[in-house]
Amino acid sequence: MITVGIIGAGRIGKVHAHSISTQIPNARIKWMADPFMNKDTADWVKGKGVEKLTKDYHDVLNDKEVQAVLICSSTDTHSKISIEAIKAGKHVFCEKPIDHDVKKIKAVMECLKKHPKIKYQVGFNRRFDHNFQAIKKAVVAGKIGDPHIIKITSRDPAPPAIGYIKVSGGIFLDMTIHDFDMARFLAGCDAVEVSAYGANLVDKEIGKAGDIDTAIITLKMKNNALVVIDNSRKAVYGYDQRAEVFGSKGMVQVYNDAASSLVLSNEQGNTSEGYLYFFLERYMVAYAEEIKSFINAIEKNKKTEVGVFDGLQPVLMGLAAKKSLKEHRPVKISEIKF
Amino acid sequence: MITVGIIGAGRIGKVHAHSISTQIPNARIKWMADPFMNKDTADWVKGKGVEKLTKDYHDVLNDKEVQAVLICSSTDTHSKISIEAIKAGKHVFCEKPIDHDVKKIKAVMECLKKHPKIKYQVGFNRRFDHNFQAIKKAVVAGKIGDPHIIKITSRDPAPPAIGYIKVSGGIFLDMTIHDFDMARFLAGCDAVEVSAYGANLVDKEIGKAGDIDTAIITLKMKNNALVVIDNSRKAVYGYDQRAEVFGSKGMVQVYNDAASSLVLSNEQGNTSEGYLYFFLERYMVAYAEEIKSFINAIEKNKKTEVGVFDGLQPVLMGLAAKKSLKEHRPVKISEIKF
Amino acid sequence: MITVGIIGAGRIGKVHAHSISTQIPNARIKWMADPFMNKDTADWVKGKGVEKLTKDYHDVLNDKEVQAVLICSSTDTHSKISIEAIKAGKHVFCEKPIDHDVKKIKAVMECLKKHPKIKYQVGFNRRFDHNFQAIKKAVVAGKIGDPHIIKITSRDPAPPAIGYIKVSGGIFLDMTIHDFDMARFLAGCDAVEVSAYGANLVDKEIGKAGDIDTAIITLKMKNNALVVIDNSRKAVYGYDQRAEVFGSKGMVQVYNDAASSLVLSNEQGNTSEGYLYFFLERYMVAYAEEIKSFINAIEKNKKTEVGVFDGLQPVLMGLAAKKSLKEHRPVKISEIKF
Amino acid sequence: MITVGIIGAGRIGKVHAHSISTQIPNARIKWMADPFMNKDTADWVKGKGVEKLTKDYHDVLNDKEVQAVLICSSTDTHSKISIEAIKAGKHVFCEKPIDHDVKKIKAVMECLKKHPKIKYQVGFNRRFDHNFQAIKKAVVAGKIGDPHIIKITSRDPAPPAIGYIKVSGGIFLDMTIHDFDMARFLAGCDAVEVSAYGANLVDKEIGKAGDIDTAIITLKMKNNALVVIDNSRKAVYGYDQRAEVFGSKGMVQVYNDAASSLVLSNEQGNTSEGYLYFFLERYMVAYAEEIKSFINAIEKNKKTEVGVFDGLQPVLMGLAAKKSLKEHRPVKISEIKF
Repeated sequence: MITVGIIGAGRIGKVHAHSISTQIPNARIKWMADPFMNKDTADWVKGKGVEKLTKDYHDVLNDKEVQAVLICSSTDTHSKISIEAIKAGKHVFCEKPIDHDVKKIKAVMECLKKHPKIKYQVGFNRRFDHNFQAIKKAVVAGKIGDPHIIKITSRDPAPPAIGYIKVSGGIFLDMTIHDFDMARFLAGCDAVEVSAYGANLVDKEIGKAGDIDTAIITLKMKNNALVVIDNSRKAVYGYDQRAEVFGSKGMVQVYNDAASSLVLSNEQGNTSEGYLYFFLERYMVAYAEEIKSFINAIEKNKKTEVGVFDGLQPVLMGLAAKKSLKEHRPVKISEIKF
Repeated sequence: MITVGIIGAGRIGKVHAHSISTQIPNARIKWMADPFMNKDTADWVKGKGVEKLTKDYHDVLNDKEVQAVLICSSTDTHSKISIEAIKAGKHVFCEKPIDHDVKKIKAVMECLKKHPKIKYQVGFNRRFDHNFQAIKKAVVAGKIGDPHIIKITSRDPAPPAIGYIKVSGGIFLDMTIHDFDMARFLAGCDAVEVSAYGANLVDKEIGKAGDIDTAIITLKMKNNALVVIDNSRKAVYGYDQRAEVFGSKGMVQVYNDAASSLVLSNEQGNTSEGYLYFFLERYMVAYAEEIKSFINAIEKNKKTEVGVFDGLQPVLMGLAAKKSLKEHRPVKISEIKF
Repeated sequence: MITVGIIGAGRIGKVHAHSISTQIPNARIKWMADPFMNKDTADWVKGKGVEKLTKDYHDVLNDKEVQAVLICSSTDTHSKISIEAIKAGKHVFCEKPIDHDVKKIKAVMECLKKHPKIKYQVGFNRRFDHNFQAIKKAVVAGKIGDPHIIKITSRDPAPPAIGYIKVSGGIFLDMTIHDFDMARFLAGCDAVEVSAYGANLVDKEIGKAGDIDTAIITLKMKNNALVVIDNSRKAVYGYDQRAEVFGSKGMVQVYNDAASSLVLSNEQGNTSEGYLYFFLERYMVAYAEEIKSFINAIEKNKKTEVGVFDGLQPVLMGLAAKKSLKEHRPVKISEIKF
Repeated sequence: MITVGIIGAGRIGKVHAHSISTQIPNARIKWMADPFMNKDTADWVKGKGVEKLTKDYHDVLNDKEVQAVLICSSTDTHSKISIEAIKAGKHVFCEKPIDHDVKKIKAVMECLKKHPKIKYQVGFNRRFDHNFQAIKKAVVAGKIGDPHIIKITSRDPAPPAIGYIKVSGGIFLDMTIHDFDMARFLAGCDAVEVSAYGANLVDKEIGKAGDIDTAIITLKMKNNALVVIDNSRKAVYGYDQRAEVFGSKGMVQVYNDAASSLVLSNEQGNTSEGYLYFFLERYMVAYAEEIKSFINAIEKNKKTEVGVFDGLQPVLMGLAAKKSLKEHRPVKISEIKF
C-alpha cells in the first residue's frame, strides 16, 4: 500500500483522487492540498476517503508517512514543488508540462540525479489510452516493419477561454505538446527537426492574443521517420485523437471512440454516434492507468514509464516549433538551448 | 463469337442488350424480339448495334445463325419459349423464375434431357455480384469451416405497384426466390424444410391483395446448416442485400455498396452515404457477369453456373414457404409435389 | 446510503461486490453469505470492505439494518430466497432466471403482491449495456418508426462444461433467455408466439446431453413485429452480441466492442481487433449499471427497471421454444401454463 | 458524334481506347498512332473498332474529319504535339504533365490564346473518381464550412523501375503532381507556398538515382487552408488514396475501395479485403469519366473541367517542392519563374 498526497484539488487533481479511491486498491490518499480549498471541495475530497486536507502543500511534504505526491497545481509551480518533493524523499507524479522554461526542467533533472532512488513520472496520459497502447504495441511487435510515416491528428472540440490562451505558452506548448510526446512514443526515438505551419482560422480573438488555432507540424525523427501532426482548436464533431503509423511492412491506425456502436440508417445515409466529447470522456481510463503505472513503479522499484527526459523532450519540440513558425524555416531541436 | 437473340425488350432485356454490346466482345446480338416493339425501343435497340427487330420471337428461333436466346419476356411465357428454343437447338438463358408452376418447369427439364447438348441458364444474377461471389469463395475455401448459421437480409427500397403484386405469385415466389437461391448457393446444398412467418406491416393494400410485405423464413439445409432470411418490401434507406455465414471456424459477412466512401462528421455524428438504391444500381455489373458466364459456357462447352435444377429448387422452396405460412407449420420441401 | 447483503459469493456475486465497492458510493455491502465461504473468498470479500461474512444467508435476512439483498446463489434457490427476503422486508435483486419452473415464479409474484413496497429487480444485465441502451433509446425516440423486424445475434465464444449443460435447463432457458428479454426490451411489448429451429453442430456431447448448440428462434410480438434470434454455443472469434431493429422509418444496429480501434493493413487485408471475449469483458460496466439502477430505485422509491414480470416472460418464452422444438410447430406463449 | 484520334498506344492510350469503344457512344476513334505500332497492338486496336492505324501522328492531325486528339505519348512530346494539334484545329486531351518545363507549358498556353475555340483538357483523372467527386461536392455544398485543414494520402503499392525514376522528374513531378492537383481541387483555390520533407526509406537505389521515396509536403493555400500530403512509393497493402477536408462546420473523409465488402471474423480478428491494387484498378471508371467530360465539353461547347491552367499549377507546385527540399526552407509558388 502506497501512501499518497495530492497537491492541487482542481479538475485533474480530482480525476486522480477519484481513480485512486475507486480503482487503485494498493494506494491510499492521505492528503489533498490546495491553496483555495473550500467547503465544496473539502466535502468532495472527504467523500473519496481522503483523510487530511490542507491549504499548504508543505504539510504533505513534511508528513513522513507520505511516500509519493501527485503535483496537480498550476504549471508555474510544477518544477518548484517537484524539487521540494524530491528533496523531501517523495516519489513524484507531475502533471505536464514540467515547465515551459527549459532551465527549470534542467533543475529538476539535476535534482533527480542527486536522488537516484526517487521515481519521477510526467503526466502524458495518452500513452496509457487503450488505442494508443494498441498501436504502440503493434509497432513494437514489428507488425509494420520500420516506421516511415507517422500521422497524428489532434483536435479539440472547442477552444479554451482567451484568458487561458494568453498564459498557455501558445498552442505548441499547450496542445501540441501531447502530440510531440505521442510522436516520440510511436516512433520510439527523439525528434531531430521541426517545421511548423500555423494559421488563425477558428477565432480572431485567438490571433489577437498572439496565438494560432490551426497548425500542421512536420518532424524528422532520429530513425528517419517523418511525422506530421495536425491540430485545430475547434472540431465541431468532438475531440479528434487519431494516429497512423505507416512502415515497410504495413500500416496501423487507431480511431476515436464513441459512446456506443449504434448506427442509424435512413434516407440521410448511415449515421454512427459522434466521438466522445473531450479529454475527460476519452481519457478517463487512461488517467487511472497512468497512476496505476506510477504506483506500480514505486511498489516494484521499476523505472517509471514516462520519465523526466520524456517530460523535457516535448517542451524542446514545442519551443522549436514556435521558433519555426516565427522564423518561417525548419528548426533543429539542437538549436533550442538546454 | 456467339450469335444471340434477345426475346423481350423490357427493362431486363435492355439491361442484357446493353451488357452484351458494351462488355461482351465475344457475343453479338442479331435479333431483339418484342410483341410491343415501338419506335423508341427500336431506336434504342439499333443504337446498341442490334441488326434485326421483330414482334414475333419465332423469327429468332427460325434463324439458323442464332446460337443462343435470352428469354426476357413475361414470366408466364418462360417455360413455353424455353421448350421451343431448346427444340430449335438454341442455348437458353431464361430469366427467373422459369415458372411458378412446378409442372411446367418439369416439362422444361424433360425437354432438356432429350437435348443434352443445350446449355440452359437461369437468371439468378445475385450469384454473380462481387460481394456474394466473395462470400461464396470464402466459404468454399474453408475459411469458416462447416457452415452452421446462414443469414440473408433482403429488403427492397419500395414495394411494387399493387397491380404487380396481385400477379407476382406472392412475396415468396417474387422476392424471396432470390434469397432461396442465395441460401442454396451459400450453403452449397439443397433445403430440406421451410418455416415461414409473415406480416402485413408496410402497406395495407398489399394485405388486401392477399400478400404479405414483411417475412422471416427459416430453412433447414441438407448439411444441417440453419438459414434465416428476412424480407421487407420497404427499406427507406435503400436496397438492403447482406449475407452472413457463420461456421465452425469463423464468420464471413458481406454488406451493401454505396456510391462513394464519403463520411461526413459533424454535430450529428458520422454519416456515410446511403446504399445503392435498387437492383439496377446494385447489380448492373452482376447482370453483365451472368451473361459473360453463359456465353463462356457455350464457347467452352461447359456446364452453365446456374442450371435448370437451380431454377427449380427456389420455386419448390417458395411453394413450401407459402404452404408453411398458410398452414402455420414447418413444411418439408418433399411435400411439394414434383 | 443503502445497506446491502449479497447472498452467493460465486463469480457473479463477486462482480456485484466489486461494482458496489468501487462505483456505487450510495450503497454499502454489510454482509456476504455463501455456504462454501472459504479463506480465499473471505480475504477477497474483506478487501472489498465487506463487514460481515456468513455461511448462512439467514443471518443477512435477520439483520434489520440490511435494506436490500442481491441473490447470486444457484438458480434452484432463487425463488425460495426471494420469498424469504421479501417476507423479511428486504428489497431484492435476483439473478436471472428467477426459476425454470413457472409455478415458483408465480409464488414470488404472489408474495410481492402482498408486499407492495418491496422493490424487486431481475438481473437482465444486457439492458444496461451501452450499446443496447443506445439502440433502445433510438427506438423509443421514434428514429425507426414502427418496428417491423428485430434481429438479435447471441453467440458464446465456447460452450460450458457438459456437466453444466445437463442442469442448465437447455439452451433456451440458459442462453436464449437473455435474448428473449432483449426481444421484449427492443420491441417494447410481449411475445405472442415462438417457433424454434435447433441443431447439434458444435459438439456431439451436447447432443448426447439432450441439448442443442445452434438455434434460430422466430417470434411474433404483440405489436406485430417479427423477431429472429440466432444462437451458437461456439463463435471462435469471441462473444457475439449484436442487434438490429428495422422499421417503417429506418434501421438501427449495434455491434460488438473490441479492446481498441486498432486496424492493421498489410498484404492480408485490413484487420481490426477481435471482439471482447465473453460476458465479463463485454458487460462489466452493464453489471455495475444494473446495480446502480436497483439502488436508485430504492433510494428514490421508483419502480425497478426490470421487474418480476420481466423475469417471468423470458421463462415462458423459453418453455414455449422448448415445446416448439420438440413438437416441431409454432407454439403460442399462452399455451404455457401459468 | 465526335471523331477522335489517339496518339500513343501505350498503357494509357489503350485505357482510353477501351473506354471510348465501350462506354462513350458519342465518340468514335478513327485513328490510333504510335511510332512503335506492332502487330499485337494493331490487332488489339482493330478489335476496339478503330479504323486506321499509323506510326506517324501527323496522319491524325492531317485528317480533317478528326475533331479531337488524345495525347498519350511520352511526356517529352506532350507540349510539342499539343501545339501542333491546336494549330491543326483539333481539340486536345493531354495526359499529365503537359511538361516538366514551365516554359513549354507557357508556349502551349500562348498557342491556346490564339485559338480560343479549342478545348484543352489535362488528364488529372482523380478528379473524376467517385470518392473524390463526392468529397469535392460535399465541400462545395458547404457541408464542412470553410476548409481549415486538408489531408491527402497518396501511396503507391510498389516503386517503378529505377530506369523510370531517373527520367521521371522526381517524385514531386511524377507522383505528388496528382496530389498537388487534388489539393487545388479540394481547396478550390491555388497554393501560395510549399514546404517539403523527404526521405529515402523504401529502396536505396532510388536514393542513388537522386530521388526520394517518402515525403510529407505542406502547403499554404490562398484561402488560408493548410494542406498536408504524404507520399510513399511502397505501401505493401496496396494503392492508398485517401483525402480528408476539415473545416469550420465539420469534416469529410474518403477512403480506399476494395473488390468486395467481405469481412472474415476469426481468432485473428476481423479482416476486410485489401484495397484495389493500383491506379488501373482504382481509377478505371475515372479514366472513362474524364474522357466523357472532354467529349461533352466539345459537344456542348463548354469549358473543359481541367484546363491548361490546371495543368500548369501542379508543375509549379512540384518545382517549388523540389526547391524546398533542396534549399531546406518553405518556397513560395511565386518564386518559380513563369
